[in-house]
Amino acid sequence: MTSSSGTMLQVCSLQPPAEPAMSPRYIKFTNARVVLGSELVTQDLWVDSASGKICGVPKDVLAVYIKPIDLKGRILAPGFIDVQINGAFGFDFSNLDCLTNPVKFRRDLHSLNQRLIQTGTTSYLPTMTSQFTKTYHHALPFLGPTGTGRRASTGAESLGAHCEGPFFAHTQKGCHSPEAILSLGNTSEPELLARVYGEENLFSSPGSTPNVKMVTLAPERLGALDSIRKLSERGIVASIGHTAATYDQAVLGVKSGSKMVTHLFNAMNQLHHREPGIFGLIASSKDRVFDERVDLADDGRPYFGIIADGIHLHPASIRLAYGAHPEGLILITDAVMFMGMEDGVYEWTNGQRTVKQGMTLKLEGTSTLAGSAIDLMSCVNNLLRWTGCSIPDAIRTVTTTPAAMLGISVKGNLSPGADADLVVLESGHDADGFTAEVWNSSI
Amino acid sequence: MTSSSGTMLQVCSLQPPAEPAMSPRYIKFTNARVVLGSELVTQDLWVDSASGKICGVPKDVLAVYIKPIDLKGRILAPGFIDVQINGAFGFDFSNLDCLTNPVKFRRDLHSLNQRLIQTGTTSYLPTMTSQFTKTYHHALPFLGPTGTGRRASTGAESLGAHCEGPFFAHTQKGCHSPEAILSLGNTSEPELLARVYGEENLFSSPGSTPNVKMVTLAPERLGALDSIRKLSERGIVASIGHTAATYDQAVLGVKSGSKMVTHLFNAMNQLHHREPGIFGLIASSKDRVFDERVDLADDGRPYFGIIADGIHLHPASIRLAYGAHPEGLILITDAVMFMGMEDGVYEWTNGQRTVKQGMTLKLEGTSTLAGSAIDLMSCVNNLLRWTGCSIPDAIRTVTTTPAAMLGISVKGNLSPGADADLVVLESGHDADGFTAEVWNSSI
Repeated sequence: MTSSSGTMLQVCSLQPPAEPAMSPRYIKFTNARVVLGSELVTQDLWVDSASGKICGVPKDVLAVYIKPIDLKGRILAPGFIDVQINGAFGFDFSNLDCLTNPVKFRRDLHSLNQRLIQTGTTSYLPTMTSQFTKTYHHALPFLGPTGTGRRASTGAESLGAHCEGPFFAHTQKGCHSPEAILSLGNTSEPELLARVYGEENLFSSPGSTPNVKMVTLAPERLGALDSIRKLSERGIVASIGHTAATYDQAVLGVKSGSKMVTHLFNAMNQLHHREPGIFGLIASSKDRVFDERVDLADDGRPYFGIIADGIHLHPASIRLAYGAHPEGLILITDAVMFMGMEDGVYEWTNGQRTVKQGMTLKLEGTSTLAGSAIDLMSCVNNLLRWTGCSIPDAIRTVTTTPAAMLGISVKGNLSPGADADLVVLESGHDADGFTAEVWNSSI
Repeated sequence: MTSSSGTMLQVCSLQPPAEPAMSPRYIKFTNARVVLGSELVTQDLWVDSASGKICGVPKDVLAVYIKPIDLKGRILAPGFIDVQINGAFGFDFSNLDCLTNPVKFRRDLHSLNQRLIQTGTTSYLPTMTSQFTKTYHHALPFLGPTGTGRRASTGAESLGAHCEGPFFAHTQKGCHSPEAILSLGNTSEPELLARVYGEENLFSSPGSTPNVKMVTLAPERLGALDSIRKLSERGIVASIGHTAATYDQAVLGVKSGSKMVTHLFNAMNQLHHREPGIFGLIASSKDRVFDERVDLADDGRPYFGIIADGIHLHPASIRLAYGAHPEGLILITDAVMFMGMEDGVYEWTNGQRTVKQGMTLKLEGTSTLAGSAIDLMSCVNNLLRWTGCSIPDAIRTVTTTPAAMLGISVKGNLSPGADADLVVLESGHDADGFTAEVWNSSI
């Protein structure tokens, strides 16, 4: 991947995080260009190894307790957050080992976390495609938030699972198993959410987070608006996706509590200029008056995921979406288990097979895209190239913006008190690449 | 038309322009909020009646030669420019009186100009739908630029004709007569433009402007790119419209010289996220690199017309387009002869009939929209309501922006030397309305 003129970033090396017992109390990054809002500010950044948090300048500390790291002008950014990733390196978060071999499931998940962090992603929402109820009940307990139990050596951290399905429009199922979607019909029984995902995965003790952090669903389905309200009340993001909703139906979804759109453009109706559909949701509107029509206020616009792999979307579509609502754009990989694997034909869930050819993944025998094989760093590079936005603005789409969407204040920023999930990036151009190191000083 | 919260503008009265012989030499507008760029600046504005131009503060002039006009805080804006209007008040610029009764054609055109200026439009491009060659040859000499021969008493001024057709995609003819389009087949003979529109209408003596100022055509048609180049070389705007062009084909049109899109969204392919079509042209791009694909630089993005009547486009579509490229948006009425007339069924050109019902115009027996019945002031109000932009930014879309697109520096601004085409607007809210007076101090 080269660019004739643009900045080029690449995660190319990992600084294996040291266990806190091995480290001095404080790490002091010097000569860093720190990503602060839309600026790169040259300043020091301190990390407290005891708490795994970014901290202010400590007072009266002997030099022996300080480990200085000279970044030599390199960029220091928050670790990347991927809110839609179905798997990678041969592991699928929906794989049936959760039922038949939970020990293997846990071990493979651990291995994925260690490799995922090398791509710059320090936290993520492990994302399950549409599954039968039993699979949810067995897999979700493994996929819940790593929470306070996290250690730097375990690699990337779960912020809770993303259940992408199964409450979809039948016409917009994408590559998901139709049986998993159809089995629910148009049921809207009051306790459907709990029955499908498992009661224990939607609730948590006070102060902690349930195993499920996000649900993608179609707002026009029977009972969907009520489900959106229930999920939102519990701090679970109800994201609009795999939907045949009209603009007005989607607006009702947002008004019911949805604050996210799953992979904008993909698996939804196209924009029509008189029926703009989901894309219309992100159009700026400071004034919501339009005769009797349902409409959104400016601050009610949802966040939206974008797959910037050059296969799912044309760059001009990404420019349109970014131009309409730059603060709402969240880059996602939508990667599946074949990310990082060789080309070939692979067995997938529910008896289907996927053909991997370079970055392109399709359901065998069809033209249906079956997720992506891209990493988040490459998505950031593509956004830089295709929109011409600044480096801090591109990094925001995988840090501050997803953290704000998830309502997680300790991620996606470099303020004192935030988790010390760090990525070190070296500014470079074109094929020269961008040397990046990933730090995760969590305990 | 009311709004529960927004500013509401309305052209509700006309100050009949006085002939220069009746006026003092200078008009001094005082207590005016003058539209300057994106600001409303309280300052005086001077007009020289002798030249019909805005001027600086004259020196050593006796008070008797100055006519002060106290605007009492009202807004002073450049007169509106409509680059796509097919007729109004019962007159169609393509009507066959140009062939059979040229005296009547000229008289009716004069009458239209006197009424059109009362809507706030002080200059415009009289727009012809697709016609047979003979009609172009006879009508265009009447529709050329009013130029130095203009007088304030004649009302709105032509800046040259807009030939909307006949080089269209057959599949995107809209309400245009298919015979006029099909008669040209896919011919690309070198002198086709001159044969169709008339040699004398495409050329002019040095320093003046040809009768034709803009041509709408489909860039994918055989020979179209060459036509775009030829027109552009002569200062005639080649606008992309009524087209089935892909994104790449449209980019080639822009690279050949097109700098305008005719009524964006209408009579063209819908956006598809992997084939964004014409809409993709206006997406911001500071970096045009995308592998081997054809793409546009940021400064190569075309201007685009928008019909903000609430019928042709959903407000969210207008928000998306405005958000993507606010400096490119040009409000057009696309009004036809039925604007300002009673509801009913009317004969139209080429033996077709139009049904007018309120603001909606359709070809009889079809759902095909047949132009609009809106005035430009109402379009400005709609843009204010639907995007929440500022008053100066809304006014820009009918003044500075179309003037820049046409390359006419003396229109659309209030700098000394510009033509004194003025609209006086009173700031108001909701149903209180907006009292506006139209000034055209031209000689």
